Amino acid sequence: MTAEIITIGDEILIGQIVDTNSAFLGKVLNKIGVSIYQITSVQDDKAHILKSLQEAEDNADIIIITGGLGPTKDDITKHTICEYFNDTLVEDKAVLAHVEHLFSKYISTPISDLNRQQSLVPSKAKVLMNQYGTAPGMWLEKSGKVFVSLPGVPYEMKALITNKVIPLLREKYHFPFIRHKTLLTYGLGESAIANRIEDWQDALPDFIKLAYLPNLGKVRLRLSGKSVDKTLLESEIDKQIALLLPQIEDIFVGFEDDGSIEAILGKQLGSLGKTIAIAESCTGGQIAKAITTNAGASKYFKGSVVSYATKSKINILGVSEDAIDSHSVVSKEVAESMAINVRKLFNSDYGLSTTGNAGPSKGDSDAEVGTVWIAIATENEVYSEVFNFGNHRDKVIMKATNKAFEMLQKEILKK
Amino acid sequence: MTAEIITIGDEILIGQIVDTNSAFLGKVLNKIGVSIYQITSVQDDKAHILKSLQEAEDNADIIIITGGLGPTKDDITKHTICEYFNDTLVEDKAVLAHVEHLFSKYISTPISDLNRQQSLVPSKAKVLMNQYGTAPGMWLEKSGKVFVSLPGVPYEMKALITNKVIPLLREKYHFPFIRHKTLLTYGLGESAIANRIEDWQDALPDFIKLAYLPNLGKVRLRLSGKSVDKTLLESEIDKQIALLLPQIEDIFVGFEDDGSIEAILGKQLGSLGKTIAIAESCTGGQIAKAITTNAGASKYFKGSVVSYATKSKINILGVSEDAIDSHSVVSKEVAESMAINVRKLFNSDYGLSTTGNAGPSKGDSDAEVGTVWIAIATENEVYSEVFNFGNHRDKVIMKATNKAFEMLQKEILKK
Repeated sequence: MTAEIITIGDEILIGQIVDTNSAFLGKVLNKIGVSIYQITSVQDDKAHILKSLQEAEDNADIIIITGGLGPTKDDITKHTICEYFNDTLVEDKAVLAHVEHLFSKYISTPISDLNRQQSLVPSKAKVLMNQYGTAPGMWLEKSGKVFVSLPGVPYEMKALITNKVIPLLREKYHFPFIRHKTLLTYGLGESAIANRIEDWQDALPDFIKLAYLPNLGKVRLRLSGKSVDKTLLESEIDKQIALLLPQIEDIFVGFEDDGSIEAILGKQLGSLGKTIAIAESCTGGQIAKAITTNAGASKYFKGSVVSYATKSKINILGVSEDAIDSHSVVSKEVAESMAINVRKLFNSDYGLSTTGNAGPSKGDSDAEVGTVWIAIATENEVYSEVFNFGNHRDKVIMKATNKAFEMLQKEILKK
Repeated sequence: MTAEIITIGDEILIGQIVDTNSAFLGKVLNKIGVSIYQITSVQDDKAHILKSLQEAEDNADIIIITGGLGPTKDDITKHTICEYFNDTLVEDKAVLAHVEHLFSKYISTPISDLNRQQSLVPSKAKVLMNQYGTAPGMWLEKSGKVFVSLPGVPYEMKALITNKVIPLLREKYHFPFIRHKTLLTYGLGESAIANRIEDWQDALPDFIKLAYLPNLGKVRLRLSGKSVDKTLLESEIDKQIALLLPQIEDIFVGFEDDGSIEAILGKQLGSLGKTIAIAESCTGGQIAKAITTNAGASKYFKGSVVSYATKSKINILGVSEDAIDSHSVVSKEVAESMAINVRKLFNSDYGLSTTGNAGPSKGDSDAEVGTVWIAIATENEVYSEVFNFGNHRDKVIMKATNKAFEMLQKEILKK
């Protein structure tokens, strides 16, 4: 079973936006056993869209089209699909009601005819209601092939794919059974992990493959198996994971199905009934932001002080001026004092802090660009580590964030 | 003059990596007057690559191919291009010397025959030396069309494009002049803007196009023009912008060339010598994080308190228990108190606060999911507004963040 992805929009071709939708689609379709034959990005141009639809129909069984469904003149996907299917647009009452509801509830400007026209859909289409926006998804079939047109806004598209399109595809087709299991690790590089688990990897059965997916201090290990025998596949993957886990115990974070490391950490804190507070300097709010992206974070996250100005480390976090004068703001002493004091300030079980220099130039300290101290305070102790995360600002912030979560999880799981 | 981009690699099609190369290529080629006809991502498969090369040759004048030039077996681009050009591979002495130099200087593992084979290139190719890696770029011509094959590693590809390919293209072709100008707006939806500026848009000359690029409460308006007459094009785009600006004065943030709204805001604060501090509840650190993504934020950003737990609003931010009991944590009174107090706490010129419910369920308040109060405090006043940003957690956080920046910019620019 193959699919082709067509992304429509001049903004992709002129490089104004990076097409992240295709990677998402590739990932989720692969998971259910659909291989992507090709990704094609085309202009908001009728002839071009028609040509790409025809080529995709020749190449693949499933054609997923994103973009070009907005209410303005430059968005022509819907009309073009209508022409391709020799169809006409008809008003869908449910979509119209939904659009009117969204406008009355969330949008201050009055609804216009352009907005109402979002409820026009090809008469042959099955309408996929878009919970988060005004442009519905559309499912059409032609000579046994499926065409799905979705809005280009990533979170709208993702919700439609997850809640509507994947279930419909599963209903329509019998996919071979595929199982992916991804293990999150941290603290060790790709080739070091590969060296360590070489014997295990070499002994994997043919129908199970391993991929290394490295990203800023974290490496994901993905086991993928494909078989018509579901029971065999499941038991074999479980068996292989049971063999693997003892070899990576020190670097294993959790399974990706359980969510990101922040989500896993949140569940662990939640089940222990423990809470955390954070004092961030160089990470500038990134750690708090990553934690609060998870719904329900208020159960275990008390809050954070982003003490960007040096004075705020003294006034709010109660770091002593003396410590700053003697050791500089980027130091073990300041990091540990921040962690101790933020824990007290928020009355939490754990205190976590970062202080460093994310670059590009030196700040209130002589510390080299990339230097970051991370400290953890508990009821009984405080400790810290220093790192150099390189000279690329975003990378330093993200690596420090990942490392902070790594240290925190190790602390939480201490026996 | 048109180009097609072909990106080669299974890792793109299975969604393991996001193809950021194409957006870069689209941007730089557009700048010199080359329109991208299509972006095509194909598998590491000979037949598929040959087919896409033929189609690209039919569609475009310039074909840029990235990826598939590594030393391992799955990388087959070079051999496939050789077959397409009916050519043979020959060793390039300069490339071999470069590969050997890179290994002796930077790489701890010994050089292998696979590494040395990186110096094999099609005999008809002009070799483009790759400063940062072992795989050279290759420039080939066929029936007046240019084919350029480049490594997929982004920083290697970018250096080759900037230093080698663009100068060679400029040498070979006379390009029409292209100009893009993008205006950032906030506070009004795409169709409301379209309604408002319809007359202006309809009167645009043929060679200037307008596109709407909406994103969570912000809409970018992109004017694109193409002409052989550079002077005419520049003066006409300037003239159109001068006509447009008075119509969007209340929603205009700045030009995209000046950076994101946070970056523009930072520059404005910096040039006024003013500082800001933030008290975030439902946005959970996102506002601080967005501000500190910009290098040099320490000049105007004093810090933030992420007061997630209700108690921290009282203990750290000094909001009165009374206000919370009488009005709930999601209220005008609490938002304004947070803004006033965080301004004092950090001794900043402006205080900004958010308190709301990002969902998915109700928290320490009865406020409906999506409700967010945003307040701004200055030396002389405090005021706030309430919004409902919908029922999608990430969207609520991002829309609240964008709206906070909008309110802050309006405050800063008040006369």
